[in-house]
Amino acid sequence: MRDVAINGERQWARLMDLARLGAIPGDGVNRACLTALDREARRLVIGWATAIGATVTIDAAANLWLRREGSDPTAAPVLTGSHMDSQPAGGRFDGIYGVIAGLEAITALHDAGIVTRRPIEVVGWTNEEGSRFAPGCMGSMAWSGFAPLSTWDEVRDPEGIRFADALAEHLAVEADLPCRTLGSNKPHAYVEAHIEQGPLLEAAGDDIGIVTGIQGSRWFRVTLTGASAHAGTAPVKLRRDAVQDMVRAVAALNVLMDDPDDVLRFTVGRIVVEPNSSNSVAGRVTFSIDCRHPRRDVLLARGDAVAATIRAAVNDCDVAVEEVFHAMPVTFDPLVVEAVAASCAGYRSMRLASGAFHDAQFAAGVAPSGMIFVPSRDGISHNPAEYSSPAQLAAGTRVLARTLLALAS
Amino acid sequence: MRDVAINGERQWARLMDLARLGAIPGDGVNRACLTALDREARRLVIGWATAIGATVTIDAAANLWLRREGSDPTAAPVLTGSHMDSQPAGGRFDGIYGVIAGLEAITALHDAGIVTRRPIEVVGWTNEEGSRFAPGCMGSMAWSGFAPLSTWDEVRDPEGIRFADALAEHLAVEADLPCRTLGSNKPHAYVEAHIEQGPLLEAAGDDIGIVTGIQGSRWFRVTLTGASAHAGTAPVKLRRDAVQDMVRAVAALNVLMDDPDDVLRFTVGRIVVEPNSSNSVAGRVTFSIDCRHPRRDVLLARGDAVAATIRAAVNDCDVAVEEVFHAMPVTFDPLVVEAVAASCAGYRSMRLASGAFHDAQFAAGVAPSGMIFVPSRDGISHNPAEYSSPAQLAAGTRVLARTLLALAS
Repeated sequence: MRDVAINGERQWARLMDLARLGAIPGDGVNRACLTALDREARRLVIGWATAIGATVTIDAAANLWLRREGSDPTAAPVLTGSHMDSQPAGGRFDGIYGVIAGLEAITALHDAGIVTRRPIEVVGWTNEEGSRFAPGCMGSMAWSGFAPLSTWDEVRDPEGIRFADALAEHLAVEADLPCRTLGSNKPHAYVEAHIEQGPLLEAAGDDIGIVTGIQGSRWFRVTLTGASAHAGTAPVKLRRDAVQDMVRAVAALNVLMDDPDDVLRFTVGRIVVEPNSSNSVAGRVTFSIDCRHPRRDVLLARGDAVAATIRAAVNDCDVAVEEVFHAMPVTFDPLVVEAVAASCAGYRSMRLASGAFHDAQFAAGVAPSGMIFVPSRDGISHNPAEYSSPAQLAAGTRVLARTLLALAS
Repeated sequence: MRDVAINGERQWARLMDLARLGAIPGDGVNRACLTALDREARRLVIGWATAIGATVTIDAAANLWLRREGSDPTAAPVLTGSHMDSQPAGGRFDGIYGVIAGLEAITALHDAGIVTRRPIEVVGWTNEEGSRFAPGCMGSMAWSGFAPLSTWDEVRDPEGIRFADALAEHLAVEADLPCRTLGSNKPHAYVEAHIEQGPLLEAAGDDIGIVTGIQGSRWFRVTLTGASAHAGTAPVKLRRDAVQDMVRAVAALNVLMDDPDDVLRFTVGRIVVEPNSSNSVAGRVTFSIDCRHPRRDVLLARGDAVAATIRAAVNDCDVAVEEVFHAMPVTFDPLVVEAVAASCAGYRSMRLASGAFHDAQFAAGVAPSGMIFVPSRDGISHNPAEYSSPAQLAAGTRVLARTLLALAS
């Protein structure tokens, strides 16, 4: 196999250009999906893609597609890419690296004059993070047929904007881009480059993670409804205090989710109190539960016990528990996993499962899929301190380019 | 003593006019201090006051003063009034009733052609609730000399607006009103009408509460700083999860604040999580503590133990505890308490202490002070369901008018 001369400096410069869009203190990025900042970032990427002759389309979920034609335009394409949105206090690499790595791979093929048989398409999935509109992975879920796009029409962001309205606004602003039918480009294979977001590669001193699968996730939204009252006059024993019941519920969930092996990931990351005034007893609290495990049976058993655990724990409030997202564990197809493994020549690599979920989890339902991880310093992500070095990112992109070349031949 | 023919229908109509400014579902009101809505409400009140010849001034804290002249303009005035701001999910009577009752009392004196020896001034204190800018009672604290106005310059509202800037904007918009020196009008006495915000009058079937004092309050702001991380990859045992430490802290505070007699009022009413994303471990949580008790020794002992209790309870986060407000218990002066008691002819009354704090707590440091309570249905306030009937409100205003007439003679 010919090697592909990817340009690590160009890739780093492009990542830094994108990191300025939504920059926050401490080298972080806050770039929510379907915002003006998201559109600025997309335009940068589109400019780089059209400069090498790639064709640009979007679909009804606002997924962005950059296609480099193959010698057989009728062949099923090989897909690569990731997402361009970030966490509210996120870093410079989570998601966007996979898009820029895919772009760098096809740019390197272009620069080298290599034409693959299959077309290669680089995708920027809409709303992977799920932090503006929950749940995440809406773009890849809709594309893969996991759920119809209309499923999330009424989901609202923290400002009360409906997902359907934000999407319609985005599509209207990007009306100059040709639209393709959602899900029409069934691929030959999908491979996504991403930062590890965990400590394993760094701890082992490895360059590349050959990802064998993704642990499963279940997300819940819990609403506790009590009664707001005056903090100075309402006797404590007569209150229906939603904050106090939230504390009881989380303490009980900690017991349910306890895992001596520390494999299960249980997180309460979002709490909204109403009226959220220091001298008013809370009348309502909404909080999130994020539960993940590599084993389907564990995920089903613990998740199915969430509602009963909360109802048994609270004293005074009405309880509503809604499951807002679930993705069962995925094992990646050997076609892609072995193509990645065969592309690691010259690098130290390990096989590992992903702790984070990714769009690849949904692509895996449509076509053989896999992922390539690069090390994350201190295992940190979803944080401005997230960091992978230019050399680490270049290594991942070199492996991605080799993998794409193999899969597209 | 001559009686005063107050007009309960006019008073109710004015309260309902004001309730439209910031109306929220369920008959509630959300009218934060120093907003355009606050200014609309003030203009309504100013219009009613000038119609009976009262003079209007404001001071540097934006406290609004409506003065009805006495036969001896050099005599120290009798003050009455309350505040015009509401809780974010507040009702139609908390605060604004005391302003409109004061206005109704001087309007009734005007209608009857009664001239008192002392001037009577009706005040609308700025920011009693403390829910836009914490703490509450800034207007009365600054006026009474309890703290300099500049104390709160850097306090920010949830949108990040500084108190000093909001105040300057307000004063600029109201520049047509004559300004008086803050605290220059040392009064003969202060009496404030207010809804009870508790269940005692209703339970006893009484019309009027003769308020003998106010329990003390201590407010704290607690900040727990951990580290944000990815909910799918960060092992639970390695996290510095600020939500989990908040749950530990509140559970420990519940033990510290436990009171079998149910007299102590302990409330965690405000919680802010950062980044507040369902799939990110919380890097920071800020929460409020509101602790109240009628006894100074209890308030000092429990409040002084807050910081150590939290530090002992948390596992992983840095802890900062700041006391943002304190007001020791107050016993009202017999001059005013007995004037109120003597004005209750024809009504069923009881003596009681206030569970809520009020501007009267700070006025009491400057002049003999007292309060008049009317019943609150089901004891509810700081809630849209807050309710006192037109007849109950008229009874309170009748007692207020008699009290003012006695104190101003």
